[in-house]
Amino acid sequence: MANWENADKLVAYKKMLSLKGLVSLKDVLDANRVKEFSVPMAAGLTYNYAAKEVNAQILAVLQELADEAELVAKFKELFEGAIINTGENRKVLHHLLRGQLGADVMFDGKNLRTFYKTQQENIATFAAKVHSGEITNAKGEKFDTVVQIGIGGSDLGPRAMYLALESYARKNNSLKMNSKFISNVDPDDAAAVMQSINPAKTLFVLVSKSGTTQETLANELFVKDYLKKAGLDASKHMVAVTSESSPLANNPSYLASFYIDDFIGGRFSSTSAVGGTVMTLSFGADIFAQFLEGANESDKTAVNSDIRKNPALLDALIGIYERNAQCYPATTILPYSQSLSRFPAHLQQADMESNGKHVNRFGEKINYATGPVLFGEPGTNGQHSFYQLLHQGTDIVPLQFIGFSDSQFGEDVVVDGSTSQKKLCANLVAQIVAFACGKSDENPNKSFAGGRPSSLIYGKQLTPKALGALLAHFENKIMFQGFVWNLNSFDQEGVQLGKVLTKKVLAGQIDGALKEYANIFDI
Amino acid sequence: MANWENADKLVAYKKMLSLKGLVSLKDVLDANRVKEFSVPMAAGLTYNYAAKEVNAQILAVLQELADEAELVAKFKELFEGAIINTGENRKVLHHLLRGQLGADVMFDGKNLRTFYKTQQENIATFAAKVHSGEITNAKGEKFDTVVQIGIGGSDLGPRAMYLALESYARKNNSLKMNSKFISNVDPDDAAAVMQSINPAKTLFVLVSKSGTTQETLANELFVKDYLKKAGLDASKHMVAVTSESSPLANNPSYLASFYIDDFIGGRFSSTSAVGGTVMTLSFGADIFAQFLEGANESDKTAVNSDIRKNPALLDALIGIYERNAQCYPATTILPYSQSLSRFPAHLQQADMESNGKHVNRFGEKINYATGPVLFGEPGTNGQHSFYQLLHQGTDIVPLQFIGFSDSQFGEDVVVDGSTSQKKLCANLVAQIVAFACGKSDENPNKSFAGGRPSSLIYGKQLTPKALGALLAHFENKIMFQGFVWNLNSFDQEGVQLGKVLTKKVLAGQIDGALKEYANIFDI
Repeated sequence: MANWENADKLVAYKKMLSLKGLVSLKDVLDANRVKEFSVPMAAGLTYNYAAKEVNAQILAVLQELADEAELVAKFKELFEGAIINTGENRKVLHHLLRGQLGADVMFDGKNLRTFYKTQQENIATFAAKVHSGEITNAKGEKFDTVVQIGIGGSDLGPRAMYLALESYARKNNSLKMNSKFISNVDPDDAAAVMQSINPAKTLFVLVSKSGTTQETLANELFVKDYLKKAGLDASKHMVAVTSESSPLANNPSYLASFYIDDFIGGRFSSTSAVGGTVMTLSFGADIFAQFLEGANESDKTAVNSDIRKNPALLDALIGIYERNAQCYPATTILPYSQSLSRFPAHLQQADMESNGKHVNRFGEKINYATGPVLFGEPGTNGQHSFYQLLHQGTDIVPLQFIGFSDSQFGEDVVVDGSTSQKKLCANLVAQIVAFACGKSDENPNKSFAGGRPSSLIYGKQLTPKALGALLAHFENKIMFQGFVWNLNSFDQEGVQLGKVLTKKVLAGQIDGALKEYANIFDI
Repeated sequence: MANWENADKLVAYKKMLSLKGLVSLKDVLDANRVKEFSVPMAAGLTYNYAAKEVNAQILAVLQELADEAELVAKFKELFEGAIINTGENRKVLHHLLRGQLGADVMFDGKNLRTFYKTQQENIATFAAKVHSGEITNAKGEKFDTVVQIGIGGSDLGPRAMYLALESYARKNNSLKMNSKFISNVDPDDAAAVMQSINPAKTLFVLVSKSGTTQETLANELFVKDYLKKAGLDASKHMVAVTSESSPLANNPSYLASFYIDDFIGGRFSSTSAVGGTVMTLSFGADIFAQFLEGANESDKTAVNSDIRKNPALLDALIGIYERNAQCYPATTILPYSQSLSRFPAHLQQADMESNGKHVNRFGEKINYATGPVLFGEPGTNGQHSFYQLLHQGTDIVPLQFIGFSDSQFGEDVVVDGSTSQKKLCANLVAQIVAFACGKSDENPNKSFAGGRPSSLIYGKQLTPKALGALLAHFENKIMFQGFVWNLNSFDQEGVQLGKVLTKKVLAGQIDGALKEYANIFDI
């Protein structure tokens, strides 16, 4: 059993704090460093950290920290089924969705890998029947659209993954069904989506682990009401993704039900039936399988105890150095790929909900900074927006760039001697160096201090496999950071109070300020 | 002439810094405060700051700061045509797009209000011809879709405004044309949009003030190439929005050109031809006029020197207190309205590009924190994502809530005794109180410290007029904050270095680290 200690009890952590401000990026960044500060990732991706504020001395201390905190040993405990989610007394098994890293994980006499695998197979079988026309609407017409109804982890990850591969699938003649998403309890969300589709040819995927999510149940009834008015039988248009114990399980209101369990956290459920149903319906089982393969390859690199061979671990530790030694309060994700437009929003949940905590895994208050604010938009769009502050603002915000040599569609034009794809990549690399090295100028307004650290994840193309690897990289990075901070990264008690108060508002059981606020909206 | 001084030279600013940590929200927030800490805004909106960490003493100092820094006098100089954008030697006239607040503003013998008004009229005339079928494609078919090609301010604002009113217009039978947007130089962005439309029935609106924006020109040629392959004459499908001196002006490649000038900054151009062309084509001239009316009403409230009667000024000053006295590094915008899904991305540009600066308006380095990181997503979605960190993370992030009593579509269902719209608003008010007051619990993991400040802007419905008022509120807030920090909020020198280096990369004029990075992408 690994030893779980607060970070500030660790010798290496204290050493790390003493190394604040050691590296001046503009003085060290050269061609050799770009070559050397590079770690292969899964699926042909590479993690380059040449423009991070680290050197051999800091890396050695980060290795000591990884060892002293037993980060890889903790990961092994996790994937072999230890109760890592202490607050909720649960295992944490999203790695098992995409391969077996260690021993079998059993629960109540059930082999859980087999359970997850069976769900994938059931989804694949169902999707194949939808695609072939064996399962159709009441008129015998093929379904051509999927609408996923879910919120939080049942929305952000699946939506980001769908958007990431929509163009790839279209290019490769694998876009079997278009997908849309309804998430917000705002009735305008559901209304706008319903107006944009032909409900007669739409399959709705209702996703709620508990089967009790307020927003999702309200949206389900919104959609059912809409279908009824359109003369359609909702039970022939709806599929549920839920846990076996939920009211949505084995329920004749749905064409089929696919299952997850308590060991798959919402924000880590893209590789489960939560992401798998919409992705398999949209792209087919093969593409979803490639996505899982990429994630599994990424997981395998995450068991290496050498930080220079474990990109997720290294990325995590550099992030700890930036957060706790350099004291940077925020970080930004900048994918130079329009298909990754919602990937930052997914990571925003995955990261901030996992590590935005003030107590350790034993429920004791801690005395150091944990998860940073995380935000991002695709480049080059962001360059014309918030990059001004990143370059010349008064705070330093570390950056995480993501880029690919090739586009997904392959359609391009040459303007002024270069393709758009080359321009995209040229912008990316120019930004890395601009942020790191800056530029002095007589006019302080045109002067750039530099010293803005960034990393770069790159690959040839955003394929399903590359996407799986990218996703798992960040999932594992977040997990390792949670281990260092000694957090339970897998609960979310911070969302409970709002839920409780909302119920009270709706029940009219309120007074004081809350009642006065409710009066504003005539509740 | 107002006196321009750095904030830390001001008596009131120093007084403000001494008032750090004065208010404990959970001790003061009660029903009376919710009633009292409220300021009417334009267009029937209200700004409520009961859950901000201010009291009579702090508000008095903020009023002193407003007076000492001559914030309203500076606004008056701005809208009457002073050279407020000192770095670029330009006037700042976006207020003039939507009404005349002071004296006429003349330039080169031209009345600029008349100039802007003429553009609006030209756009309205053109759009009416498109809607009536007087202007059609070569086959005589009506155009039914608009695609705007632009980036940064030519994309984020117009896109956010379009999405904000799309459902409203559909509900009110005013959705005359659907609109889409191409922004990123990533060729997959243009390819995906082109695949989703019928180009034969699409009007393209090319937006670039200079006529030289790299991304926009590349995307223009991408689209022209696509149209040519489809056998279409691009010059019959394209409209330009640009400055009169740009290569796009009076150019036979376009059906029509509409003009802005150097006094309209990109991120403040939603109420100019940049936003006006796509909005008028999409919704008609009436709706765009209502939008401008709301913005103008907002501007009028911003000239009041009493901070309790000037919501933009008050909001700005509370933000200064939070940033400089309380030292909060980030802020978040949380609209409880799915239609405002991209409003935070627009404000992210408007705010971070304006005030993410390290030099004052005279180009001298300053010694205090300026613009914060700004991010956001619509509620209730965000509740299931990053709110965990906002509630229980180790940093405090001030919040800006926005909500409406009524939805735009008016389609709704009752589930468990309440409509979705009521649930949406109940969640919003519950969050305000949860953040402010927290909850103590024996289990620290279920304990909420509270003390998370928020404000609330609310109204009856997100109408065109309300949207205009909301937009102008934030534009003016950003302007006032820039005045306090003594910044030039209207240039963006921080984006130049990346542009210069990109050109060098594409020209192959690089060595060292930059060349090695370029090699990665085979540039």
